[in-house]
Amino acid sequence: MVRTMTDTGTDSGAAAGERAVARCDVLGVSPFSDEIDLLYRPWLGPGFIATVEAISNWMRQAGMTVRQDAATNLIGRYEGTTLDAPALLFGSHLDSVRDGGRYDGMLGVIAALEVVAGFHERGERFPFAIEIVGFGDEEGSRFPITMLTTRSIAGVLEEDDPVAAFAGLRDGTGLTVEQALARVGLTPRGMAAARRPKDSVLAYVEAHIEQGPVLEAEGRALGVVSGIAAQRRFEIRVHGMAGHAGTMAMSLRQDALTAAAEMVLAIERIGVAGGDRDGLVATVGLLRTWPGVANVVPGDVTFTIDVRAGTNTTRDRTVDVFLAALKEIAERRGVEIEIIPRENLDPSPCDPHLMTLMETAVQDVTGEPARVLVSGAGHDAMIMSRLAPMAMLFIRCEKGISHNPAEAVLPADVGEAVIALTRFVRLFADDCSKTQGRHSA
Amino acid sequence: MVRTMTDTGTDSGAAAGERAVARCDVLGVSPFSDEIDLLYRPWLGPGFIATVEAISNWMRQAGMTVRQDAATNLIGRYEGTTLDAPALLFGSHLDSVRDGGRYDGMLGVIAALEVVAGFHERGERFPFAIEIVGFGDEEGSRFPITMLTTRSIAGVLEEDDPVAAFAGLRDGTGLTVEQALARVGLTPRGMAAARRPKDSVLAYVEAHIEQGPVLEAEGRALGVVSGIAAQRRFEIRVHGMAGHAGTMAMSLRQDALTAAAEMVLAIERIGVAGGDRDGLVATVGLLRTWPGVANVVPGDVTFTIDVRAGTNTTRDRTVDVFLAALKEIAERRGVEIEIIPRENLDPSPCDPHLMTLMETAVQDVTGEPARVLVSGAGHDAMIMSRLAPMAMLFIRCEKGISHNPAEAVLPADVGEAVIALTRFVRLFADDCSKTQGRHSA
Repeated sequence: MVRTMTDTGTDSGAAAGERAVARCDVLGVSPFSDEIDLLYRPWLGPGFIATVEAISNWMRQAGMTVRQDAATNLIGRYEGTTLDAPALLFGSHLDSVRDGGRYDGMLGVIAALEVVAGFHERGERFPFAIEIVGFGDEEGSRFPITMLTTRSIAGVLEEDDPVAAFAGLRDGTGLTVEQALARVGLTPRGMAAARRPKDSVLAYVEAHIEQGPVLEAEGRALGVVSGIAAQRRFEIRVHGMAGHAGTMAMSLRQDALTAAAEMVLAIERIGVAGGDRDGLVATVGLLRTWPGVANVVPGDVTFTIDVRAGTNTTRDRTVDVFLAALKEIAERRGVEIEIIPRENLDPSPCDPHLMTLMETAVQDVTGEPARVLVSGAGHDAMIMSRLAPMAMLFIRCEKGISHNPAEAVLPADVGEAVIALTRFVRLFADDCSKTQGRHSA
Repeated sequence: MVRTMTDTGTDSGAAAGERAVARCDVLGVSPFSDEIDLLYRPWLGPGFIATVEAISNWMRQAGMTVRQDAATNLIGRYEGTTLDAPALLFGSHLDSVRDGGRYDGMLGVIAALEVVAGFHERGERFPFAIEIVGFGDEEGSRFPITMLTTRSIAGVLEEDDPVAAFAGLRDGTGLTVEQALARVGLTPRGMAAARRPKDSVLAYVEAHIEQGPVLEAEGRALGVVSGIAAQRRFEIRVHGMAGHAGTMAMSLRQDALTAAAEMVLAIERIGVAGGDRDGLVATVGLLRTWPGVANVVPGDVTFTIDVRAGTNTTRDRTVDVFLAALKEIAERRGVEIEIIPRENLDPSPCDPHLMTLMETAVQDVTGEPARVLVSGAGHDAMIMSRLAPMAMLFIRCEKGISHNPAEAVLPADVGEAVIALTRFVRLFADDCSKTQGRHSA
């Protein structure tokens, strides 16, 4: 594959990558963060508002018209060959967790900007518009609820009814969602007006750092996402018998912790046996001991299980296997377990046809077949797949670290992503015209 | 073995057991507890003072003279055939942990009272005095320091220097030890005056509920203690790599919790392999995960290890084995461990000769060889062994439960304990006269 200057405007992909990373870095500090010493950009905070302003300017420089919708999403639009054409949407989120990294979310918006800037510079237009959406609250960075603004655009705000769900929730300063929205002249229910008609959106594409170590481990800059994982969460409570650490003979114990330890290892073993097949991962993230003192044999232990996989089948088969293992361990050790289901999320598969286009684009850029992988993390794309066919491109990040100031990407990788996304748009356009041709034939 | 009425005065051992349990029950509620709904009898609290008063009366009824020493210990003395004879000391503690049981400590004092009451009723005297000591602060129930009053009698208060150690420590109401003592006209340094001359004490004997399940599991009422366990404590810190539970592939994880789980099981396995030999027990009582959320692979885990055994040899050999196992697990899993020693207590062996007498007494009462066991818990006897030869008798308690309102003993078991202790005193007297004989020979 030969890369030409025209792929990214007057400069190389490498320069686009450098610029995109530098822009994310600029947005990683004050005044784009609400904290002096770390990055924290909660939805509708001062840093968020300054960020919207900065990106709006960059969007205008890239030939886009800019608006904020009724749900506070920032939307830049690069018109197609005809006005009011339906749009190919790029997007990701502008908010950041406390003490987060500079690229989570933001890179997807800024990389898309480089793609559009390239088209603008070359005067290249398509039979569709290109829009870039900066979503407001993917992270739940301010209120303990997520993707309200994404749900608004996708038109599922009322269906999911999170407005009712967040009634009474407050941010760290005591403000409700209603009060935070009122400060920018909006209301929770009014956000529904951000809904996009289905026929105005051709597809949704999101570039995002992988937030995992797979691409780095395999020496690849880019990966094509097959879907966002199905997920199930459980809380497990193990009830044994507390006892004096000095007087309770080993042979007579019903130690809730040693039972739980065996369960944790069973879950790990079953997860590893999945061999990363279908993106299977199983995690015990929290474990607590009661009474939790050095000289008492733990009577009770609580732990969480988080299982994700690309399909419900893999996920549920795995859950069945380890729940059986847990019950066997409990019975053998004479402890009780309670299994409390906490979450059950279906997978959000990417659109197979868009995936094929993205794989082609990545192969054209990298010269080798694209690595396809499941996204274990949730993304705006999860919600947007309910509005339009969805695809995602993953960009390698250092050691898979995310939600951490140590989050890092290589500018060269971002450059490759910009070229691949540019290629994707052209492939998508070719495809549209073929479909158009078939339709008119 | 034939039991006669004269073993416990005018009534049977069963009646003595019923009375002892009933007295502990009386002392388990207000005004002998500082709480209305649960038993909490901190050192020098109103409940403690009322308890001293009640037991003083029972001591006088049993023919004893009563005093409180400079360290607040309650001491009843039943004179021997000559005045000012050295004494055989019985004792245990009067204080109780918050929400504690009625028999921990108290039963040792009250059962000894039944023994003396029997001698008093029969007019039976020995060439030595018998004293019963109710210690003040075995539990650390009020201040975060233990056995100050025991150390005072044993004459090791200045040697251990806990007075300096507790400077600045306060109880739940903000009072210092100094202030609490001032209210009863005493001072911390003045407590040292409670020191007993070594030649005034022949031996120290403590009866105590087992606080463990061994006797119940083996269907025995009584057990003879071989010593108070040697102990070592560690804090272990496991450092892995935190990661997103959805994106961190199983094969690439450095999960601090799964590593710690394997360590917990190794410690259990090594403890069990000890086969309760030499009282070996190994416990992980507290385990904490960081960051401790369901969707993050734990990056750090901290846990405690508590190992006890009858001898330093068994304890230290066990520690060596599991520390090697922990290091092997850490290395294999690519995580770091820190091993932080927290405590290192030598064992307090019971006096072999007194043990033999106690075993004989128990065998005479129960008709079968006495079960000898290590005390995994600490007791006043641990300190008193530094003053005089020491022996302990364990009484079966329900399910080994202690430090809990569910603590329970069978009156019949307590009756057997009273008879066994009575028998012990006679054996001890025979033994003294033989020694005397040998000495005068």
